[in-house]
Amino acid sequence: MKRRPEASDPTAGCPGFRFAGVAAGIKKNGNRDVALMVADEPAVTSAVFTQNRVKAAPVRLSAQHLARRKRLRGVVINSGNANACTGAQGMRDAKDMAVRAAAATGASSAEMLVASTGVIGARLPMAAVRAGIAAAGAELRPDGFGDFAEAILTTDKRAKLAALRTRIDGQPVTLLGCTKGAGMIMPNMATTLTFVATSASVSPAQLTAATRRAVAPTFNAIAVDGDTSTNDTLAVMASGQRGAATAAGAQAFTEALTELLSNLAQQLMTDGEGVHHVVSIEVVRAASAATAARIAQRVAVSPLVKTAIAGADPNWGRILCAVGNAGVAIDPDRLALTIGSVPTVSRGAVRSTWDEAAARAVMQTPRYRIVVDLGLGGHKARYLACDLSHDYVSINASYRS
Amino acid sequence: MKRRPEASDPTAGCPGFRFAGVAAGIKKNGNRDVALMVADEPAVTSAVFTQNRVKAAPVRLSAQHLARRKRLRGVVINSGNANACTGAQGMRDAKDMAVRAAAATGASSAEMLVASTGVIGARLPMAAVRAGIAAAGAELRPDGFGDFAEAILTTDKRAKLAALRTRIDGQPVTLLGCTKGAGMIMPNMATTLTFVATSASVSPAQLTAATRRAVAPTFNAIAVDGDTSTNDTLAVMASGQRGAATAAGAQAFTEALTELLSNLAQQLMTDGEGVHHVVSIEVVRAASAATAARIAQRVAVSPLVKTAIAGADPNWGRILCAVGNAGVAIDPDRLALTIGSVPTVSRGAVRSTWDEAAARAVMQTPRYRIVVDLGLGGHKARYLACDLSHDYVSINASYRS
Repeated sequence: MKRRPEASDPTAGCPGFRFAGVAAGIKKNGNRDVALMVADEPAVTSAVFTQNRVKAAPVRLSAQHLARRKRLRGVVINSGNANACTGAQGMRDAKDMAVRAAAATGASSAEMLVASTGVIGARLPMAAVRAGIAAAGAELRPDGFGDFAEAILTTDKRAKLAALRTRIDGQPVTLLGCTKGAGMIMPNMATTLTFVATSASVSPAQLTAATRRAVAPTFNAIAVDGDTSTNDTLAVMASGQRGAATAAGAQAFTEALTELLSNLAQQLMTDGEGVHHVVSIEVVRAASAATAARIAQRVAVSPLVKTAIAGADPNWGRILCAVGNAGVAIDPDRLALTIGSVPTVSRGAVRSTWDEAAARAVMQTPRYRIVVDLGLGGHKARYLACDLSHDYVSINASYRS
Repeated sequence: MKRRPEASDPTAGCPGFRFAGVAAGIKKNGNRDVALMVADEPAVTSAVFTQNRVKAAPVRLSAQHLARRKRLRGVVINSGNANACTGAQGMRDAKDMAVRAAAATGASSAEMLVASTGVIGARLPMAAVRAGIAAAGAELRPDGFGDFAEAILTTDKRAKLAALRTRIDGQPVTLLGCTKGAGMIMPNMATTLTFVATSASVSPAQLTAATRRAVAPTFNAIAVDGDTSTNDTLAVMASGQRGAATAAGAQAFTEALTELLSNLAQQLMTDGEGVHHVVSIEVVRAASAATAARIAQRVAVSPLVKTAIAGADPNWGRILCAVGNAGVAIDPDRLALTIGSVPTVSRGAVRSTWDEAAARAVMQTPRYRIVVDLGLGGHKARYLACDLSHDYVSINASYRS
């Protein structure tokens, strides 16, 4: 009998883990800025990192640690400073963070992942970071996930958490996650940090496969502005000690993880910089899944589509134009387009019965769908897009100043 | 003896051509909206069109005409309506424009190019268009290029014209051009219409080669917002009747055409929607010209770089981040960056002696350079970028409304 995972209280924690988030003075506003997550025993861990060729020191260090062992003890994070483009000193500081986190938790430094987010190119204030890690170590507790989720934020408006409870292979399993990120959200993990703790029992290979599958339709199918950062990290740690799950259990775990990440990705979009509309761009009847995804992405990142979304302007011509710009073979005369439930384009031209006022009303709502029907095949893909607003420009024209 | 082309008065015209631009009532504001350019004799013609898979009817018709013959008589243009995504009716209307323009000039319809720009998806108001073409035919005159250049505009703030006079193969040669386009300016000719008349003698093959070479570093190396339109057309007509030029003459012509298009492309950027800063992104010491161009383009279209330009914020981290996002192999530890003449980054990290105030002062000027040194090889590329401003959002959130 299959049971759907149920939402649960994120602050209740996850068996086998303790969390903390403290204010160490890295952020000027005094908010929490050092976070620590620790597994009581070495936990099977997988992670995906930014595809940017300019990778911050903590990303490179974490990838090295994960390449050497698949069972780790925890993650230490600071916000307010990305420790990116900081040269050899940046790597020394990232290693120092791992050493301090290990000391604060009784792990070895090679068992720690490190993540940083914030301003690029400034050296970490290591005195504050070290004191913050020690303080976080002292505050670790099973119900500390709320503090943890707050301490990883930068320009986010609010903490973004989710938890699920389900049964896998007959055992109760918790999945607990949080994310951060406002601008620079694009596929391949752009300036988003995401951490998941789960009590599931999975092998390293199963966890790696589940993570890759769960990321594809969630964190790799959202776009705020098309830039990907130097620091993006999504890590999943599983504390289950019973060994590998069954194939059916691994499948159930993948589904639960996808649901959790989907929830977090949606929260991320809704909280995006200057975002007032989150729009699901759905490309259907494509010749392949890859071309569907490419077109959905192109529409989602088009500045002219995004400003039309901002203005609640049902400018279907811009959407078709973006479809044509994806570099994918299409038949313009077969294109159809639906805004919300309002049929707008068929056979490449606007419908004579188009209800423009109804389409405009749809676009004034905070969440809706735009469906692009290519009329070519049986494949589809989906991408979450958002508006390009005055607020986006305001936030990003003055972020450093 | 080599002579540099000299700027001359665009309104003085070009031997062998007549021009007109009239107000036909397609635009609601009463501005000129039908343009006509006619060669007295069939003129060698080349053109490049949008790479968008959704091509407007006039683009498809013009490409057909040019595929059949290389000597044409003229171009008819309307602004205010793009005749794009208008189905079979759109193609009938484009053909009708060619027929009417031929009737007004004594040419055959197959000798005319057709171009349209403006709102996508609405049927052309053909009664107004036909009357406008007839009126333009009656007003054709050698010094009508100013009216012509006005009649192709949409949201442009001003007409953009340029003329050069030079000597090629010992003969005086005029090159005369105008362009339009505000948003949607990207490589592969995005919603820009550009027309060049020249008295040079070149063969069809020479003109085609010269056009391709001149477009690459000019109109294909500018980005306002990364979208390319359904209608972009750049056409060059040469009235010279002496037959093919020498190889040296063809080379001199290519250089003069490149200079003319460079002038027009710069005007286009400066007049871009909501543009206050035009920035030359120069990538040097790349492993290949192709990778240099790819990186320059990625930096030029990055929304986070463009908002930093808008805010005059010397946020070099965002520039390095965009470099890393180009999907090109680089060595982050070799990256260097100069803003104007202010050395900012070397070996992948900010210089300890960086003068941030000086970099900020550079970015407050309307035109400056950002040089990215990859430290890898001997190749380079350049791209013109601009700011992403509140004005851009305002203009594009309400274009149709």
